[in-house]
Amino acid sequence: MNALSRIVIIGSGAAGMSAASRAKRLKPSNDVIVIDSSRWVSFAFCGLPYLVGGEVKDLDELLYYPPSEFTKRGIDLRLNKTVIEVDPDSKKLIYVDNSTGTKESLEWDKLVLATGARSKAPKLWPEIRGARNVFYIVHMESGQQIRDYARSLGPGKRAVVIGAGYLGLEMADNLAKLGLKVTIIEALGQVAPRMLDPELAKIVEDNIRSKGVEVVTGAAVERFNIINNTATEVVTSKGTYQGDMFVVGVGIEPNNELAKQLGLKLGQSGGIIIDERTLTSNPDVYAAGDVTEHKDLVTGQLVWRPFAQIANKMGHVTGSNLGGVDSVFLGSVGTSAFKVFDVVAARTGLSASEASKVGFKPVEVSLEAGTKAHYIPGGSKISLKVVADEKTGRLLGAQAVGFDETAFWRINVVASLLTRGGTVWDLFNADYGYQPLLSPVWDPLVIAARLLMRTFGERPW
Amino acid sequence: MNALSRIVIIGSGAAGMSAASRAKRLKPSNDVIVIDSSRWVSFAFCGLPYLVGGEVKDLDELLYYPPSEFTKRGIDLRLNKTVIEVDPDSKKLIYVDNSTGTKESLEWDKLVLATGARSKAPKLWPEIRGARNVFYIVHMESGQQIRDYARSLGPGKRAVVIGAGYLGLEMADNLAKLGLKVTIIEALGQVAPRMLDPELAKIVEDNIRSKGVEVVTGAAVERFNIINNTATEVVTSKGTYQGDMFVVGVGIEPNNELAKQLGLKLGQSGGIIIDERTLTSNPDVYAAGDVTEHKDLVTGQLVWRPFAQIANKMGHVTGSNLGGVDSVFLGSVGTSAFKVFDVVAARTGLSASEASKVGFKPVEVSLEAGTKAHYIPGGSKISLKVVADEKTGRLLGAQAVGFDETAFWRINVVASLLTRGGTVWDLFNADYGYQPLLSPVWDPLVIAARLLMRTFGERPW
Repeated sequence: MNALSRIVIIGSGAAGMSAASRAKRLKPSNDVIVIDSSRWVSFAFCGLPYLVGGEVKDLDELLYYPPSEFTKRGIDLRLNKTVIEVDPDSKKLIYVDNSTGTKESLEWDKLVLATGARSKAPKLWPEIRGARNVFYIVHMESGQQIRDYARSLGPGKRAVVIGAGYLGLEMADNLAKLGLKVTIIEALGQVAPRMLDPELAKIVEDNIRSKGVEVVTGAAVERFNIINNTATEVVTSKGTYQGDMFVVGVGIEPNNELAKQLGLKLGQSGGIIIDERTLTSNPDVYAAGDVTEHKDLVTGQLVWRPFAQIANKMGHVTGSNLGGVDSVFLGSVGTSAFKVFDVVAARTGLSASEASKVGFKPVEVSLEAGTKAHYIPGGSKISLKVVADEKTGRLLGAQAVGFDETAFWRINVVASLLTRGGTVWDLFNADYGYQPLLSPVWDPLVIAARLLMRTFGERPW
Repeated sequence: MNALSRIVIIGSGAAGMSAASRAKRLKPSNDVIVIDSSRWVSFAFCGLPYLVGGEVKDLDELLYYPPSEFTKRGIDLRLNKTVIEVDPDSKKLIYVDNSTGTKESLEWDKLVLATGARSKAPKLWPEIRGARNVFYIVHMESGQQIRDYARSLGPGKRAVVIGAGYLGLEMADNLAKLGLKVTIIEALGQVAPRMLDPELAKIVEDNIRSKGVEVVTGAAVERFNIINNTATEVVTSKGTYQGDMFVVGVGIEPNNELAKQLGLKLGQSGGIIIDERTLTSNPDVYAAGDVTEHKDLVTGQLVWRPFAQIANKMGHVTGSNLGGVDSVFLGSVGTSAFKVFDVVAARTGLSASEASKVGFKPVEVSLEAGTKAHYIPGGSKISLKVVADEKTGRLLGAQAVGFDETAFWRINVVASLLTRGGTVWDLFNADYGYQPLLSPVWDPLVIAARLLMRTFGERPW
């Protein structure tokens, strides 16, 4: 080994490139090498639906920075190369060039696993492997392939989207924008099942249906029927649905092959368990992003949350620690959001039923209110639920569905309070601004607090 | 006195009607009487600019509820009656009917002062009292008068607005919407001087000017020149400005005449000092809304903040206490916002210079960032400043100016953290949602936190 400290980062997505940039910038003597099996760096998977729908014109627009930017920063990028072996004892790895098949080995002082998540689709339904019209997100090209295929079909043909989570819904929205007829198939009994309570999900579903999209819930996909490498229909527990193309928007898992090779401690999801400095159970191996589990700040339990903003923060923390700045990622509270068709939905923390499951005694309030002053034309309604703990008055979570961006922002406000252990009285007292064009004088958040205080009383305990 | 507890509330605005409704609802045996010199109840002064501009068609739309609603709730409304005498010893007051001149007296068990604020304009410039084309906000009718006069002038005539605070700016915006030429005169050196730092105010000012509005700063109004009851020009320290109508949007003060008669303890602003239950220095007199001072949760000092959302909360607390539910208003952190022309501006807590004045050692960061994912068309820029305390890492305040509503909401997020004593590390860790159509993956708030952590380090102390 040379005198430099060599940091090898596997994975060039949000977490990997955040870590790489920071480790190099804080300590230029670090030798930072990033290896990825794709040709892409610093890519935004979350933008793929908008590439499909055409709002984003070109795949390159989805890069936060082009590869050249990282090379300029002194980072050694080795793209289109797949790591096939890692050995924790010799601290050596072997990667293969995807084009030439050439193998190379590389030693590390510190390793960072930022290998992200992968689709379970080909494992769940092996028959789709050869099918040219069944898609799922593997790499950035997947977005382009979906778009190109959808355009080649043209308006009037039918796309079947498997899964009504946020990715499935966003894909459905964007496929509909291209003029395709769209069917959404969801195994559970409602859309956005991991995010929203049924009555809020209903608002989303009604809006989607009103756009002519067929929504089928309670339909578990059993198999795809494929003729001549072309899927013609999907067989579900509820019936068979025909389509001209199929997009699988469900079923991802931590991409943990290398973590297993390294013998790292994994959590229940298969994600790598890391400490607050993002260090794994191996003191020379960090991990960040979608391949890791982290702490939920409401329950204290480990969770797997493959979200880009969390991956970026984690990567930042990893890079800081590798650059000599003591840094911590404390956890998250489970904030997520989507915007599909006319609807904005967001949630943070726990639902009442989730709260019960982990031992809280939840008190829940529910309301519908205007998002702007009542006398301002163009305001809309927000449906809001807030959950608090009966024993302490601590806020546990909130969900909102509305027709403007304030549903997202009101949930961000609750998320901030959750991060800080806020209570129902904080929800009342928090000094939200008021301006008639922007909000009503009694903000829905304050109305929710007032409803909660019927149970908790109006003076903080 | 009868067996009932008689609660007399002076003032039928936000605070008064909140208190009345709640006191009656929680304890129907309360005899609740509300007296006001106007004909209006539960009115939204903040909506008057939109009545002027035409977005709000009719004055009645600005009522949160019509008077009949309160009568239905069992509240005894005595409108168009002015209280002229209150005696704390006999617990008796005298009011006069504005139409008939009849006097009546009334005893109370508990009195609530919700007398609001009043314009200092006629005191500052006595010559405007008789002028038919100089306007300031007295009651709801003021808005209608401004609108009617502006419409009678018609497009092309010039309106001069005195004061570039949020009311002045909103009036200017709405007068411009009617086709008038508009001049804004501000005594201090920038627009929004009590709200924004100069460099953020500049963004607002540039946008206003780009709409053809003349903005004159550093021009203190000395007097109005009036001919035949018509003001023709305003003389300032910087020159004389002609106009066809004049709207004074500055200089309000607590309407504390009756508070003085009662011998209540007043703060530096002239606002009534109340405790957290909204009780004044007289144990039988509560006060709520724009006539009171309350505690700033960042500095611990008493402040006067005549904002409708605060008045509503205070009135709620007063009403709860009168209804037998122990309730507290803990204070505010100084969140305010406006939207004028294309700009949304908001602030919370302290600016760096305000923080220095009260003994903090502020660390300030400043940035400009996109409000949406970079690849989503239609995003805009937000300019954001965040201030924290060097000694503790506690957040002290933030300001934002942008061209969409997210400037308002990002400030609300900081306000929530301030209410809860949040730190720079909370600003980083708070789990804001991410969705490309709604926000960038590195939220400007997180970028601000990262900049602050350059000073504070990345691990919470």
